[in-house]
Amino acid sequence: MATVSIVMGSKSDLPVMQEASKVLDSFGIDNSLSIMSAHRTPERAADFSKNAVNNGVKVIIAGAGGAAHLAGVMASLTTLPVIGVPIVSSNSIDGWDSLLSTVQMPSGIPVATVATNGAKNAGILAAQILGTSDNEISNKLRKFKSDLADKVVKDDSTL
Amino acid sequence: MATVSIVMGSKSDLPVMQEASKVLDSFGIDNSLSIMSAHRTPERAADFSKNAVNNGVKVIIAGAGGAAHLAGVMASLTTLPVIGVPIVSSNSIDGWDSLLSTVQMPSGIPVATVATNGAKNAGILAAQILGTSDNEISNKLRKFKSDLADKVVKDDSTL
Amino acid sequence: MATVSIVMGSKSDLPVMQEASKVLDSFGIDNSLSIMSAHRTPERAADFSKNAVNNGVKVIIAGAGGAAHLAGVMASLTTLPVIGVPIVSSNSIDGWDSLLSTVQMPSGIPVATVATNGAKNAGILAAQILGTSDNEISNKLRKFKSDLADKVVKDDSTL
Amino acid sequence: MATVSIVMGSKSDLPVMQEASKVLDSFGIDNSLSIMSAHRTPERAADFSKNAVNNGVKVIIAGAGGAAHLAGVMASLTTLPVIGVPIVSSNSIDGWDSLLSTVQMPSGIPVATVATNGAKNAGILAAQILGTSDNEISNKLRKFKSDLADKVVKDDSTL
Amino acid sequence: MATVSIVMGSKSDLPVMQEASKVLDSFGIDNSLSIMSAHRTPERAADFSKNAVNNGVKVIIAGAGGAAHLAGVMASLTTLPVIGVPIVSSNSIDGWDSLLSTVQMPSGIPVATVATNGAKNAGILAAQILGTSDNEISNKLRKFKSDLADKVVKDDSTL
Amino acid sequence: MATVSIVMGSKSDLPVMQEASKVLDSFGIDNSLSIMSAHRTPERAADFSKNAVNNGVKVIIAGAGGAAHLAGVMASLTTLPVIGVPIVSSNSIDGWDSLLSTVQMPSGIPVATVATNGAKNAGILAAQILGTSDNEISNKLRKFKSDLADKVVKDDSTL
Amino acid sequence: MATVSIVMGSKSDLPVMQEASKVLDSFGIDNSLSIMSAHRTPERAADFSKNAVNNGVKVIIAGAGGAAHLAGVMASLTTLPVIGVPIVSSNSIDGWDSLLSTVQMPSGIPVATVATNGAKNAGILAAQILGTSDNEISNKLRKFKSDLADKVVKDDSTL
Amino acid sequence: MATVSIVMGSKSDLPVMQEASKVLDSFGIDNSLSIMSAHRTPERAADFSKNAVNNGVKVIIAGAGGAAHLAGVMASLTTLPVIGVPIVSSNSIDGWDSLLSTVQMPSGIPVATVATNGAKNAGILAAQILGTSDNEISNKLRKFKSDLADKVVKDDSTL
Repeated sequence: MATVSIVMGSKSDLPVMQEASKVLDSFGIDNSLSIMSAHRTPERAADFSKNAVNNGVKVIIAGAGGAAHLAGVMASLTTLPVIGVPIVSSNSIDGWDSLLSTVQMPSGIPVATVATNGAKNAGILAAQILGTSDNEISNKLRKFKSDLADKVVKDDSTL
Repeated sequence: MATVSIVMGSKSDLPVMQEASKVLDSFGIDNSLSIMSAHRTPERAADFSKNAVNNGVKVIIAGAGGAAHLAGVMASLTTLPVIGVPIVSSNSIDGWDSLLSTVQMPSGIPVATVATNGAKNAGILAAQILGTSDNEISNKLRKFKSDLADKVVKDDSTL
Repeated sequence: MATVSIVMGSKSDLPVMQEASKVLDSFGIDNSLSIMSAHRTPERAADFSKNAVNNGVKVIIAGAGGAAHLAGVMASLTTLPVIGVPIVSSNSIDGWDSLLSTVQMPSGIPVATVATNGAKNAGILAAQILGTSDNEISNKLRKFKSDLADKVVKDDSTL
Repeated sequence: MATVSIVMGSKSDLPVMQEASKVLDSFGIDNSLSIMSAHRTPERAADFSKNAVNNGVKVIIAGAGGAAHLAGVMASLTTLPVIGVPIVSSNSIDGWDSLLSTVQMPSGIPVATVATNGAKNAGILAAQILGTSDNEISNKLRKFKSDLADKVVKDDSTL
Repeated sequence: MATVSIVMGSKSDLPVMQEASKVLDSFGIDNSLSIMSAHRTPERAADFSKNAVNNGVKVIIAGAGGAAHLAGVMASLTTLPVIGVPIVSSNSIDGWDSLLSTVQMPSGIPVATVATNGAKNAGILAAQILGTSDNEISNKLRKFKSDLADKVVKDDSTL
Repeated sequence: MATVSIVMGSKSDLPVMQEASKVLDSFGIDNSLSIMSAHRTPERAADFSKNAVNNGVKVIIAGAGGAAHLAGVMASLTTLPVIGVPIVSSNSIDGWDSLLSTVQMPSGIPVATVATNGAKNAGILAAQILGTSDNEISNKLRKFKSDLADKVVKDDSTL
Repeated sequence: MATVSIVMGSKSDLPVMQEASKVLDSFGIDNSLSIMSAHRTPERAADFSKNAVNNGVKVIIAGAGGAAHLAGVMASLTTLPVIGVPIVSSNSIDGWDSLLSTVQMPSGIPVATVATNGAKNAGILAAQILGTSDNEISNKLRKFKSDLADKVVKDDSTL
Repeated sequence: MATVSIVMGSKSDLPVMQEASKVLDSFGIDNSLSIMSAHRTPERAADFSKNAVNNGVKVIIAGAGGAAHLAGVMASLTTLPVIGVPIVSSNSIDGWDSLLSTVQMPSGIPVATVATNGAKNAGILAAQILGTSDNEISNKLRKFKSDLADKVVKDDSTL
């Protein structure tokens, strides 16, 4: 399996979630995209999470909308850091349900939650986590931050 | 196992959830209380739900607070009706997180949600469900509703 | 009358509510669609609910938007389980009013609330309720869940 | 019956609702307090509202909490103006459910909603409504407003 | 001046607010539409309200959006009943600001608030208020309610 | 009149609002506290605001709770900067109504809104406004900020 | 540097923020527009704010969306008044995040917050602040308010 | 510096934030607690974050309430993963402001947000992050999860 596993609850989440994959690709970090549902394929999701460590996964990114339980289910069955992306899907109340059901995890089982539809930031956060023990990634992140700043400065110069 | 299984995510949910048990007792309906956590004992929770039908359970009532996934986990692994009680616990944002993460389930996996802290109503709803095929319970519900009305009329007469 | 009565507060709710009918049809469960308003036809709604048991109804599904009282009115006058569908109509504040006025019922009178616009799940929940005393429906639900899972697995394989 | 009927869903609403009665008493307007529940005594509530006009009632004030349907039920069965008081009860989510289920009425059936727990203002509004055809009440209201202003001026003078 | 004065804070509120005028026309009740702003023309608004009683106005309907102070300003300067319509304008946060700043009036100064964009209901409520002392209006309201019910029954028959 | 006028809608707002006075005193800025209500003493409030410029007032601070119109009323009648303090009073819904009815002002009439119960910050903001043309105040603000920082550093050193 | 510095967190905020510039131009007040991000160019933003006083800036207007920290960062490093504009950007939850992260500043560091997307009002507020020591600006504001009122009266006359 | 730096905006946050320290201690992970404010000591906070990598810090945990910018300020100046704890302080609107201003970070600068007051989970998440490259920590986390489960099972056995 890939170093970063990106999972999502429904195919309709793909346009949002592939932003995580793209940014990880740009850092040269091995990653995979999978669809699995906490509610429709609970055993598949559980097996995935339970075996993630042994399969070489280092970070799990999970995106879901509405009563978004996927990140929590992942987190309940692994010791890996799990990043949650609350998705603003058509059956969500403006993302409030997705956000609260991802972030308000009980004591003992954290989910590292990013902004609503923040899959790109989830990818960056995964890189930051890997960067704590990988200087190459850490250097790429420094370059990435510098490019972000340059973009703002360039935008400013066009005013 | 009992006909109605009442499960909750934490011992601190017991004062709320035993209201479900009490009202079921008053209808003479066999019920049990258990603590199991979608996040801290995910496999235990999954096993419970998967085996519920074979163990003779007819209705599951699940209460949890915060990112309340317990009812959803139950519902994902059984064909039984699952009633969700959003609990207003100390780590909940006034119950909003509990309510949204219980009720906003995705297409295919309903949770029959009652009011925040509405465990008594969860017990009554379980009785109504069993009453669809049990005239004795149905008659007790009629009596129960009539008593409710009498109580209001009596309260009114004291003004 | 049909085994499952699907009622709604306004003709504009029909596109949402007929999802309940479709999924019940797919389970071979007899169902009917009616328009009646808690506020504009209160006596008609009351009569419907009061006579539902005697007319052979087993489950009522009620959908409404805004200050959504229809499910509550149904529940006040019958011992049958009433499933509430909070509808996100044009005069609703993003569904918040519909959700809260459906789910936050007082002690004694539960409404089994599903997600906003969750009429399909309301139909599935009705089937689950009937399945507590009907093995054929229960088996169909097992098949339904298995199909849901297959769909997710198939979606995953296309990535 | 009294000119202004003050109804409430539960005895626990009495401390809030009697503020309406007190202010009406201070205007010399005949009023009565009753407990009746949209959900626990639906037929009693319906009868009350249907007969209000014939019983000489001019204005109905209805207070309830949570999924607060009482004012809406009253309004559905009478042509009298109905004033709704959203009550912040122990089973309410900070009053949001009470407020939205009282004010967001569908087209055709208005409820004149005042602030959460605003029973005193409900009484004043009832007086204003009666004052549209009663000069004596209108004069008392003018005096009441003037006293309110004097109280503020007096408070200011103490600083 | 007309019996019912309909005022609004901005020309952009006209499409919503003229629904109040239309329904009052249908009851044969004399009404007028005016634009005046609590914030941009505060003295004009104050003068209007202070003189309303003497000009023969019986009910004021005021609609505004965002920090919607118009109904409150009207109510502060008259003893007439003031009906508030919270408008969901482009600069409103989904109507929440309009609703709360209209309905949450302090003790002593009620505003009879209807649903967001509920100008039609504001017109009906004005008729109900006038109907407390005018049998002709009261009879028209009975007919109006009956027509509403007939429309629902007819819609139901088309299913 | 004082350079900075601090006005509040009710005597119960005094404990919150005098924080503004205290911090202004500490800067040596002349200030006054008054009670006046947008709704109970509308004309007094209007007169106050209309005459503020001629009376030598430079900045107005207005605090109110619930449907908090006082700051808006002040702002409508003066060209002075008006600072609004949304107060979390007992009749407010956790401050949401106070905040939204203070900050969401229409185009043309700004209110400079600070945090809920943020009267101290209102006083500091008034000083900052006066400091734009008064070097002495500006220097005191620099000292104030430096003291704030020292306090944090000292707190840190106690860990 | 210009007397009023208008800064924004992203180029996408420009259509909203240039309303501030336009209204300041109409008052003849020198102003500048810049893009700088609290998060992507933190040091640039810090330098800007720290040097603003020495560069002759009198008022800073800062607009940002989502977790909108730009105004707060500005305010933390200057004694100038900072006006915050909460922007409803595509990654914001209807403006709630922008509003709360702008207005709810801690004790000691106020941000003068205007309505969501209220950049025009931010410009007017800046003029009001400058007008406290500049009669010419003060007179222009009086004219501006009078024109606003005339526009409303003219709109009213077209009904 | 310690491997995990725990920073908070105010001394009043200490009772919440030391839960992070305690759980890290239990894993034998080196950690430190500091008070620094994004708004009152912005330069100190900036220096801290800029130098964290060179000082050997691996993960930063930042807790703050209200317009909680501390975690965002940290994240803007380092490539380390930053975990945000939204604190429900006395000047927060029930934690909503703290949560939204922590989690809704713009593209490019993630903050790994945990539940309101979820400092213990922040500590666990830091351990999970370090565990991605440290088997000893990873094993301790497995033990921790197993103990959590045992605690639930034991609680269940007491019913």
